[in-house]
Amino acid sequence: MSKSPLAPQVMPALPPISGARLGATACGIRYNGRTDLCLIVFDEPAAIAGVFTQSATAAAPILWCRECLPGGVARAIVVNSGNANAFTGRLGDEAVRATVDAAADALGCQPGEVFTASTGVIGEPLAADKIVAALPELVSSVNQDGWSDAAAAIMTTDTFAKYATRIASIGGATVTINGFAKGSGMIAPDMATMLAFLVTDAALPAAVLQEMLVAANDDSFNAITVDSDTSTSDAVLLCATGKADHPPITDFADPALDGFRTALEDIMRELAQMIVRDGEGASKFISVTVTGAESKASARQIGLAIANSPLVKTAIAGEDANWGRIVMAVGKSGARADRDALKIKIGGVTITENGARVPNYDETPVVEHMTGQEIDIDVDVGVGDARATVWTCDLTHGYITINADYRS
Amino acid sequence: MSKSPLAPQVMPALPPISGARLGATACGIRYNGRTDLCLIVFDEPAAIAGVFTQSATAAAPILWCRECLPGGVARAIVVNSGNANAFTGRLGDEAVRATVDAAADALGCQPGEVFTASTGVIGEPLAADKIVAALPELVSSVNQDGWSDAAAAIMTTDTFAKYATRIASIGGATVTINGFAKGSGMIAPDMATMLAFLVTDAALPAAVLQEMLVAANDDSFNAITVDSDTSTSDAVLLCATGKADHPPITDFADPALDGFRTALEDIMRELAQMIVRDGEGASKFISVTVTGAESKASARQIGLAIANSPLVKTAIAGEDANWGRIVMAVGKSGARADRDALKIKIGGVTITENGARVPNYDETPVVEHMTGQEIDIDVDVGVGDARATVWTCDLTHGYITINADYRS
Repeated sequence: MSKSPLAPQVMPALPPISGARLGATACGIRYNGRTDLCLIVFDEPAAIAGVFTQSATAAAPILWCRECLPGGVARAIVVNSGNANAFTGRLGDEAVRATVDAAADALGCQPGEVFTASTGVIGEPLAADKIVAALPELVSSVNQDGWSDAAAAIMTTDTFAKYATRIASIGGATVTINGFAKGSGMIAPDMATMLAFLVTDAALPAAVLQEMLVAANDDSFNAITVDSDTSTSDAVLLCATGKADHPPITDFADPALDGFRTALEDIMRELAQMIVRDGEGASKFISVTVTGAESKASARQIGLAIANSPLVKTAIAGEDANWGRIVMAVGKSGARADRDALKIKIGGVTITENGARVPNYDETPVVEHMTGQEIDIDVDVGVGDARATVWTCDLTHGYITINADYRS
Repeated sequence: MSKSPLAPQVMPALPPISGARLGATACGIRYNGRTDLCLIVFDEPAAIAGVFTQSATAAAPILWCRECLPGGVARAIVVNSGNANAFTGRLGDEAVRATVDAAADALGCQPGEVFTASTGVIGEPLAADKIVAALPELVSSVNQDGWSDAAAAIMTTDTFAKYATRIASIGGATVTINGFAKGSGMIAPDMATMLAFLVTDAALPAAVLQEMLVAANDDSFNAITVDSDTSTSDAVLLCATGKADHPPITDFADPALDGFRTALEDIMRELAQMIVRDGEGASKFISVTVTGAESKASARQIGLAIANSPLVKTAIAGEDANWGRIVMAVGKSGARADRDALKIKIGGVTITENGARVPNYDETPVVEHMTGQEIDIDVDVGVGDARATVWTCDLTHGYITINADYRS
């Protein structure tokens, strides 16, 4: 699979995060000639926050993480690709248990301090023995510079490894946030999407971390869609090693967190957008902004109706400024919109106002915009003041090719 | 566009319906070398029932039909293809008015007795003058045998004309129902889907007709999806000329209507399935039956989550028995399901039970089933007694090809 044309031109070098080491190895779960197991180790107990898929058929690792999250403490995160350990029944729970027990043994911690995630095919039993066998050597090889290796090890149909970094100041002390993510298809987050892992050296209690994660997630991973299909395995974990030297923070609303909050939102949005830029078969990155809605939820609902419409996405793939399909998608969303006040812009050019095409509409600049890689759609639905932006990609022959023979 | 491989091998000859005449002509709205205008005329006022799209951006003809429907009387139905007259503002309303006025003049009836529907591109002003100019000759040419011509005139991306017939007995008298429909893409009915027209010689009041139509619609046009995109123009109209000689019926629940009710459900299901069989790019016809659900609505919701999943549909296009994607779709549907009781069959073969693959699952007969044109998926979600079936088609390169350059 060649690299997505929407992949970032350059990737950043990720700095160390004090208190965190990581690494990757090939343990042979499914793929040949590439890494498929990633480990993050915290030298001392880190605070952890998490958001997970709302799927009714959630995978075994999701259930484990939900069970452990109230403890708020992480010593390690183990992630494998190639097999989602989803819909694997009792065998799935046993595979999770074998994995976390092996990691806990190697690290001298409690199993409940080991979080795990799996991504890949659904329904096949996971060969946890391969993970268990690989863990001791992996534990001894983790280091502070393993970020891009870790990001590469969790890829499935991804065409590039996704990672990013930000710095912020808390009470005068500089803190760093590193993050990496995977995802390309089965992307329509409900609570979170696919896998993303964020680590900071900030010293924040788990409860504060959790509130910050939920808030930032709403406008990042929860604001993207590739194909409207929600995974059984979506998970975003945020860990804080507490090594940074800043005054204690106990309240989510503390103004000292403003810079950190912005940096967290920013890195999560960047990672989420990278997933869209690696959407299966993607050739265009599409931003859909809905304004004039009754509520933010309503604006999001309309934005997702547009972003998930196969007819809108194929039109964009064909570089066709077919705004009639946007009208259709607004109409089907189920959220309130005033047909006769609807305003649609593509590439900043106003196409419709007051329920009809503007007089003397000149398609030329819009056609030019459609030939680019970044497509902007703005829709005002004329019933309120709320707004939301969602990001998606187009629907191309590449998506069909990838998904008509991914498993076989 | 070559004919869908799922098209029926033979089409029926439609008998006359006493009191109804119809015809078609080419008035040049958009297409060259084919008909694009269809007219149904009732010799005397017919009772009429209708169901329409729930879209918030409904087309001008839909608004007109909704306004006239309470009158319960139809003298004519005018339908054009090539232009949906949707999102055309004041010009759209004027085009409807010009059309119905011209038909009313030619037939000597009230404009409110003329129903109209349009299908094709959204957002372009409809050249009603071409319809107005063509109507007088069309009025003089309608006849009792024009059914297949009418069905052909309302096609857009359809690859075959869709029509069917049934007979039933009411109080000992034989009555006939003829119907025709169009639709291929933008098919995800909310209340009705695209266009379907049914005519019977039964003598039923509009109120009874309406109840029967709503009931039959629920398990026919409301149970199909091609691409999850709901049209601005969906409409199903059912007209009764009253020429059949049976005892008066005033009550929807009258047992004398049982046979008619079954025949109506049957013809509507056949027409709805024909739309799926002509789904854009379709190579497989897929029946998804959900049992063990909390309610019928819940079963439908899970069925549609499966039937609309791009990952399920592409897997089927690739003849891949990727049941893990069915698990995913059940999980994302939002309706209640018990992961650990989930039972999935493909082609009648049980693949999963009790939340995991059955022991010694032999994929051979399932792989064989996947190579056929008719794919059966049965899912029991283990939380109740309700059931529903929905029909869809696969998602292929053909869909992308058709929709990446339909408008241009």
